[in-house]
Amino acid sequence: MVRSEIPDIVVGRLPLYLRALTRLQNDGADFTSSHELGQRLGISSAQIRKDLSHFGEFGKQGTGYDIASLIDALQGILHADRVWPVALVGIGDLGHALAHYGGFTNRGFTITQLFDKDPTKIGQRINSLVIESADVMQASIRKARIKVAMIATPADSAQIVADALVQGGVLAILNYAPITLTTSNGVRVQHIDPVIHLQRMAYYINE
Amino acid sequence: MVRSEIPDIVVGRLPLYLRALTRLQNDGADFTSSHELGQRLGISSAQIRKDLSHFGEFGKQGTGYDIASLIDALQGILHADRVWPVALVGIGDLGHALAHYGGFTNRGFTITQLFDKDPTKIGQRINSLVIESADVMQASIRKARIKVAMIATPADSAQIVADALVQGGVLAILNYAPITLTTSNGVRVQHIDPVIHLQRMAYYINE
Repeated sequence: MVRSEIPDIVVGRLPLYLRALTRLQNDGADFTSSHELGQRLGISSAQIRKDLSHFGEFGKQGTGYDIASLIDALQGILHADRVWPVALVGIGDLGHALAHYGGFTNRGFTITQLFDKDPTKIGQRINSLVIESADVMQASIRKARIKVAMIATPADSAQIVADALVQGGVLAILNYAPITLTTSNGVRVQHIDPVIHLQRMAYYINE
Repeated sequence: MVRSEIPDIVVGRLPLYLRALTRLQNDGADFTSSHELGQRLGISSAQIRKDLSHFGEFGKQGTGYDIASLIDALQGILHADRVWPVALVGIGDLGHALAHYGGFTNRGFTITQLFDKDPTKIGQRINSLVIESADVMQASIRKARIKVAMIATPADSAQIVADALVQGGVLAILNYAPITLTTSNGVRVQHIDPVIHLQRMAYYINE
């Protein structure tokens, strides 16, 4: 099947499968089943089999999925079999937290560029990276062929930053600012929104 | 239908519908359709109608959904029609960012308590809140009847914090630390994981 014909909602579940498989592997497992995966993720085993069937034949009757092979396959499908350099824009509290975040390792992404518009921050270092001026961002990310960026600016700067990122060649933006971004066709945006998760859990609290 | 019989994956989409409806309302719209909502969210209109049908009859043939009524209904279903006090644990860079986050307003949650184990932070203020010692956390959240908490500690403290939160009566935990938490039955955990979103977008980048 052509990549673009697979529903995005299916694509959105693949990273969850990959994370669950990696945890199983770290726990020492070699094989798993759609049933076990489904129980861990709260997704039906039929849904998991159907999602994976878009991309090929995985798993065998009786033995289930070979975890290492399925991880390899999913990493390839998700383009997580390489390391994408990521630009991080907005080096306030959240930006610092993301620059130090330990969850990126071996999962396809590494922050390679930091930008802020505050003159007192420009030139400072976080780990081995120097904070660059937002004024040079567009040229800098174009030169470095950056395709992935994270926005950790205040809400009122986020759209301007997004426009500059797209002008500089970025195709995927992870937005932490509490605002809906508008981008041109072909550019993907995902929004980190804690309230979406809090509401999903509050549903279950009987008070 | 009994609340607990509705699949969590359906519950997980309701906050997305609520957010999209609120945006439509802010843009001045009074009515919308499952088709319009679906286009905004990348979810099929049939799925939206099916999800909502678990909770009652919404929308009319011809006019579609009355946005204000559907917002009211979803806020009630998600228990976002009140304001949940939230404990935030771990007041590092990320904790500061969350304490200042502008996205909670009018969405059902407000941070009312801050905790850290670092003696140099305890007693400091963020906005009107004083950072309390992690040592008093369990008693303090129990007294304040806190049911919802966010963990923004380093990974190696997160499980200990989660155990104490659950002991103190917390039923829903939003975890920012890059670690899988284990909790007792009846306690919900959601994990903010930027890589899940980055992988979903990287799928579409042809390189």
